[in-house]
Amino acid sequence: MSEFRYAARAANVIAPAAFAHHRSDMLKLSAGNAYPPALPDLSAEVAEALRRRDETLQYGPLYGIDDLRDAIAAYLHDDGIVADRENILVVNGAKHGLELACRVFLEPGDAVILTGPTYLTAVSIFQANEASFVSIGQDEDGMIVEELEEKLRARSLAGLPAPKLLFDTPDFHNPTGITLSAPRRQRILELAHEYDFMVIEDDPYRRVRFEGAALAPVKSLDTAGRVIGLGTTSKILAPGLKIGWVNAAPQVMRRMAAIKADGGSSPFTQRIVAELMRGGRLAAITAGITKVMHRHRDVMVAAFARHFPEAGFVAPKGGYFLWVELPGDVDSDAFARHAEKFGISVFSGRLSYAESPRTNFLRLSYSFCSPAEIEQGVATLARAFHDLAESGKVAAGQHGA
Amino acid sequence: MSEFRYAARAANVIAPAAFAHHRSDMLKLSAGNAYPPALPDLSAEVAEALRRRDETLQYGPLYGIDDLRDAIAAYLHDDGIVADRENILVVNGAKHGLELACRVFLEPGDAVILTGPTYLTAVSIFQANEASFVSIGQDEDGMIVEELEEKLRARSLAGLPAPKLLFDTPDFHNPTGITLSAPRRQRILELAHEYDFMVIEDDPYRRVRFEGAALAPVKSLDTAGRVIGLGTTSKILAPGLKIGWVNAAPQVMRRMAAIKADGGSSPFTQRIVAELMRGGRLAAITAGITKVMHRHRDVMVAAFARHFPEAGFVAPKGGYFLWVELPGDVDSDAFARHAEKFGISVFSGRLSYAESPRTNFLRLSYSFCSPAEIEQGVATLARAFHDLAESGKVAAGQHGA
Repeated sequence: MSEFRYAARAANVIAPAAFAHHRSDMLKLSAGNAYPPALPDLSAEVAEALRRRDETLQYGPLYGIDDLRDAIAAYLHDDGIVADRENILVVNGAKHGLELACRVFLEPGDAVILTGPTYLTAVSIFQANEASFVSIGQDEDGMIVEELEEKLRARSLAGLPAPKLLFDTPDFHNPTGITLSAPRRQRILELAHEYDFMVIEDDPYRRVRFEGAALAPVKSLDTAGRVIGLGTTSKILAPGLKIGWVNAAPQVMRRMAAIKADGGSSPFTQRIVAELMRGGRLAAITAGITKVMHRHRDVMVAAFARHFPEAGFVAPKGGYFLWVELPGDVDSDAFARHAEKFGISVFSGRLSYAESPRTNFLRLSYSFCSPAEIEQGVATLARAFHDLAESGKVAAGQHGA
Repeated sequence: MSEFRYAARAANVIAPAAFAHHRSDMLKLSAGNAYPPALPDLSAEVAEALRRRDETLQYGPLYGIDDLRDAIAAYLHDDGIVADRENILVVNGAKHGLELACRVFLEPGDAVILTGPTYLTAVSIFQANEASFVSIGQDEDGMIVEELEEKLRARSLAGLPAPKLLFDTPDFHNPTGITLSAPRRQRILELAHEYDFMVIEDDPYRRVRFEGAALAPVKSLDTAGRVIGLGTTSKILAPGLKIGWVNAAPQVMRRMAAIKADGGSSPFTQRIVAELMRGGRLAAITAGITKVMHRHRDVMVAAFARHFPEAGFVAPKGGYFLWVELPGDVDSDAFARHAEKFGISVFSGRLSYAESPRTNFLRLSYSFCSPAEIEQGVATLARAFHDLAESGKVAAGQHGA
């Protein structure tokens, strides 16, 4: 079979690492899948979608069905965000919204600001859009804005163009679980104005909160249309409907829609979500999921204390993930491969970095497995770790990505 | 509101022209929507999707669910195409497959070969991917391969790189309804090898056949993985599920998947389609739709003979569209606007050209309206035409796109 003249970006893209976790013989602590027993019964909403056949089986409007756009705007209202239908574009999950933002703003080589580590799929989407990166560290208050400002100023002094986009997950950051502080939310917006970049606020976990009070979303502080909010039903309802949204200034939303090549998301699945949002049932489902995730987090934290106390982490106050520092000199790629042999799938923390990865972190999810499996999984990880560490075969950095 | 630093491609994209046709007060002869009374009852398949909650509400595999990929491969088998699961990527409609092919193959400025006229949405997708165009004329046997060969040779002599992609709809071409002859299918493949480009065979209408025998798809003649087949359920089942597919060499399919930013199409709607294909019910639904479209075509053709005999067209032997030449000097853009005032939405033929548009054609669809509405619509178009022609206000070319 001959090779073809692929575009450079197609050679750049790293095939998603998420394949091993589809193996049914694996205990999955990798991807943020839904907990199967918490998947909702959607019979009533689906029946409504079937009844509205002329809407749900027909081509739908490019921007999304109006009932859903209105329901999403109302949903955002509860977070203090002023939005109406003209701000909302329905997309096939938040990832798809991120891709559209890249298509509308990024030329090859344009710089994107993100935290190191960050959402691993965002990295591959940015790479597929031929972005360059400005990685900023995090502390317990999130992205370190002083470092951001310094890097922006240094780029400017060096005559480099300002980055086009900043990407962050301010609430229960993926993978670290950190929440961006209120002053930093404000400061990032100020820097966006000063340096003329857009802020992408990815917000899948905000309502999956175990502790603490919510801070105002960056989007709620935005008076100039600088922020593109991304939302999804994957973590608050169920992943399989593939319904997400973009909340942006109308002219930005329309440009994203114009480049959305599918001609409009499925009105069938949109109607299901619209019914769930309008009827208020979504909030009850999210509350149920949150309760489950809270319990799962507690189980995972306790399992580490019991079986693997040498591992380091800060327990997240919401969301789906635990960001774990491996003790000693063990490389995370080697460890992830070793853990697979023990029947556990985990993501090496390397995948969460756009550049200069730290090599001794894991991203674990407590979402998919049962409490008993989480307990067993962490115990097995500890065994795998000690097995690898004692084998002495792997030193830091030996196994590059 | 400030303007932002958009990428050039976002400024290039033309907002879809398909908005007027969502106005409920319009008689729609524009978009190829489903005929509402022909929309199927999917209760049984949806019930199965609800039963399989652990599959359908969870994240699905990036390439699509295996049952659907296998069912699509079997479906293509009936067309003489050898494919298996590893060739099939499930996408959100054929448009989405086209976008992914562009992302995998096109760098800005790369040339795409297409017919003039061609599928209007393909034009905007190629434009959003910053393609340049090599437009080739059609006769009653489809794309004129001698003209194609001549242009390829001239580009080569001029030191220009060969085009990367060729896009065509060999069966019941949109908008002309023409079917590409068997020798030309073969010749296009030979030229693809000689000049090292990929062939995108868009095939939404093949089974919506009123007359004549099917020719072998280009993909069935392809032994080197040069052809990317695009399929969709929109025209053979219902548009609202947004399920389409790519059939390509595995390494091409995998690259398209790696750049498919949504992480996998909805397993809920995939399961519905898989059940329809596996159970054989899809064929019955397609047969019903074909019968309706056949009748609608006959009604439209007869209505033109009765009300608007000066208009020129070749009655299509399948598909959803009639490509109509306006008599005299009337400009199609001006006419489309004028027809709207009479309550009829039509697409100016200009939208179907990537370059050098002919200015006196309309693309009409007979799919959405009832036979009575089609009759009334064509009669009204004739009135609108005579009104415009007699007003003498519009001469050819006066109203540019």
